[in-house]
Amino acid sequence: MKELNEKGRLAKEASVKLAALSTAVKDRALLDIADAIVASADYIIAENRRDIERGIENGMSKGLIDRLSLDASRIEGIAEGIRQIAALPDPVGETVRGIKRPNGLKITQVRVPLGVIGIIYEARPNVTADAAGLCIKSGNAVILRGGKEAFNSNMAIVKVMQEAGYNAGLPEGSINLVEDTTRESSTALMRLNEYLDVIIPRGGAGLIKAVVENATVPAIETGTGNCHVYVDESADLDMALKIIINAKTQRPSVCNAEEKLLVHKNIADKFLPEVLKELTERGVEIVGDEYVCGIFPQAVPAVEQDWSTEYLELKIGVKVVRDTDEAISHINKYNSGHSEAIVTSNYQNAQRFLSEVDAAAVYVNASTRFTDGFEFGFGAEIGISTQKTHARGPMGLRELTSTKYIIEGSGQIR
Amino acid sequence: MKELNEKGRLAKEASVKLAALSTAVKDRALLDIADAIVASADYIIAENRRDIERGIENGMSKGLIDRLSLDASRIEGIAEGIRQIAALPDPVGETVRGIKRPNGLKITQVRVPLGVIGIIYEARPNVTADAAGLCIKSGNAVILRGGKEAFNSNMAIVKVMQEAGYNAGLPEGSINLVEDTTRESSTALMRLNEYLDVIIPRGGAGLIKAVVENATVPAIETGTGNCHVYVDESADLDMALKIIINAKTQRPSVCNAEEKLLVHKNIADKFLPEVLKELTERGVEIVGDEYVCGIFPQAVPAVEQDWSTEYLELKIGVKVVRDTDEAISHINKYNSGHSEAIVTSNYQNAQRFLSEVDAAAVYVNASTRFTDGFEFGFGAEIGISTQKTHARGPMGLRELTSTKYIIEGSGQIR
Repeated sequence: MKELNEKGRLAKEASVKLAALSTAVKDRALLDIADAIVASADYIIAENRRDIERGIENGMSKGLIDRLSLDASRIEGIAEGIRQIAALPDPVGETVRGIKRPNGLKITQVRVPLGVIGIIYEARPNVTADAAGLCIKSGNAVILRGGKEAFNSNMAIVKVMQEAGYNAGLPEGSINLVEDTTRESSTALMRLNEYLDVIIPRGGAGLIKAVVENATVPAIETGTGNCHVYVDESADLDMALKIIINAKTQRPSVCNAEEKLLVHKNIADKFLPEVLKELTERGVEIVGDEYVCGIFPQAVPAVEQDWSTEYLELKIGVKVVRDTDEAISHINKYNSGHSEAIVTSNYQNAQRFLSEVDAAAVYVNASTRFTDGFEFGFGAEIGISTQKTHARGPMGLRELTSTKYIIEGSGQIR
Repeated sequence: MKELNEKGRLAKEASVKLAALSTAVKDRALLDIADAIVASADYIIAENRRDIERGIENGMSKGLIDRLSLDASRIEGIAEGIRQIAALPDPVGETVRGIKRPNGLKITQVRVPLGVIGIIYEARPNVTADAAGLCIKSGNAVILRGGKEAFNSNMAIVKVMQEAGYNAGLPEGSINLVEDTTRESSTALMRLNEYLDVIIPRGGAGLIKAVVENATVPAIETGTGNCHVYVDESADLDMALKIIINAKTQRPSVCNAEEKLLVHKNIADKFLPEVLKELTERGVEIVGDEYVCGIFPQAVPAVEQDWSTEYLELKIGVKVVRDTDEAISHINKYNSGHSEAIVTSNYQNAQRFLSEVDAAAVYVNASTRFTDGFEFGFGAEIGISTQKTHARGPMGLRELTSTKYIIEGSGQIR
């Protein structure tokens, strides 16, 4: 695909210069970009308007229209995000380890940019700015492939970023947007091994699956979160209720929201009626196992597929389990490796849950909603990795780097 | 594929138990395995004999027969390798970082096994034991898919390892060998996403390419090394000669051997005749650019493809360059991201080379042959990663792990 080859080549060339850029120049460019985004708010909003109008014509849902829409305050939010990235420490050049060998060789493992990062995402134009900002700060060139629904908004944001960034000293070719928004361009980007060092999908399960199945470039799976809260027999039930309500309802459309509730059988009679009532009052639809449907007639009987589904809406699967063992094995069977919590007062059960549940983040007595770069104190992130290679959990600047061994000698041979 | 699904399921189950195993049990099992391998030398050698006989019947080359062959001393070497793995520190459970958040959440990033590792390799039976040993020590279950040429040897080694290992407390299913050695089983293993966490090919460029193109499981590219030595104008020429001879001829069949020599034009007249003579005397075939062919008539003229080829034999591509800039850009255009060296006495040129050459290991004044787990002081390795995600350079035990965030709270919600 001609556009991709051309942009790939430019990005690769830019990445060599970007890798050598000082933190001061990168930060200056990011701050200038933030200012330019605010100064160009009218232009960006006008272009965004075109996307929204087309979306309405095409019968796009209200939720999607909302995610797509930009106004002055959201533009300010985008700029503020870029400023926060500028304020984060630069991971490039960090020494990871240093070794002096008996033969006198000095070996230093240093952090370097990955090179060229491809990002494939859907209808949120703010991802354009966030992702490009994170890539720039970590010294990587970026090739963005956003959804066609946000095409005009993305083009506008990228134009503003390119102009301000290149004027401030970023090499041309650092920031690229794929203008071809067909499915073919997305697949071609996943297979652009000549130029890309990594491809990161940001979006729903369908996109992630397409990348896993088709990418030949190393890919990082992000985002799917079929998160569980398990309430143990010994739990503080007030605490458990608060955690469940928070994890399920505070922001149900995000990947760290709770999707499943497991309750120990010995407290089910006492705890379930209250929690199901509270959830229902907040508009949450209950999908339950036999026990739950027996005590709560409004519940919809769960089918096998429910246990592995990420609803991303006000809907929850509820199941009664015999003990912590059954909770752990149920979670390990059905979870997506994102965030899992136990509410308990029993030390051994807490330790077993932490050690045996296989997920990026495992919690005792806290809401799953904390799995987030900002909440962990790392700052902005490009997504939550749910795979085990390269990075697991929130992917901040450090996770957008690789390393390199530098070996300094004085003529050593083997 | 039935065999893979069954072994995948068993490996996955075993991996959960393996992850929780103490270092003491893993080390005991590895030492018992090493003893059992030595005690079973006659059996393993007899089975190896069958592979060799078939190889000879099928007209296998002398070099391959040699790589395939096991004798008492090589069996002792395999056992010693396993003992060395037992002696290495266990990376599982290490704290990578710990954070206390303002809201009281205690976040700890700990090292955990990857889970189930698939290894695809060719005709070297020693890889069977090495790879399984490294996976076990790092708490991972392993599914080995060796070449059909070494099938009986691999089966014998795996049987001995399973019996000794399971008796010493490793969960059954920890060590698996795929008995189907068709190309289909190799492809199916690369796509066994339900059970595998990572796939690592160990072998030639063809195998690596097949994995990159076909794998849906996260893969780690290893091994291809089109390594360069660049002799700068200011180099100590005696040192340069020793490094070139060592890097090219000490063991030409390995991935960190030198494949290309770049020489600064200002020293070409003085240096090249000597180095070409010394190489030729050691049986090295010279492939040269126009300049080299002009001064050295035995040289074969290089074609474009030579510059990107990993010969893995006594053959070297030689080219004269204008300056360090041209050396760096030639290397970055043609290298495979493995190991690259500059020989120089100029500080700035050394720094530029280290910073701008894009490879897993970059050297000043030392042989590329040091890119190796033992030489770096990390101990045994599963291969040299030439990609930038997950791990780059020698992949030891630490590189066979992932991490997990453990979050301990007291009822925190957002």
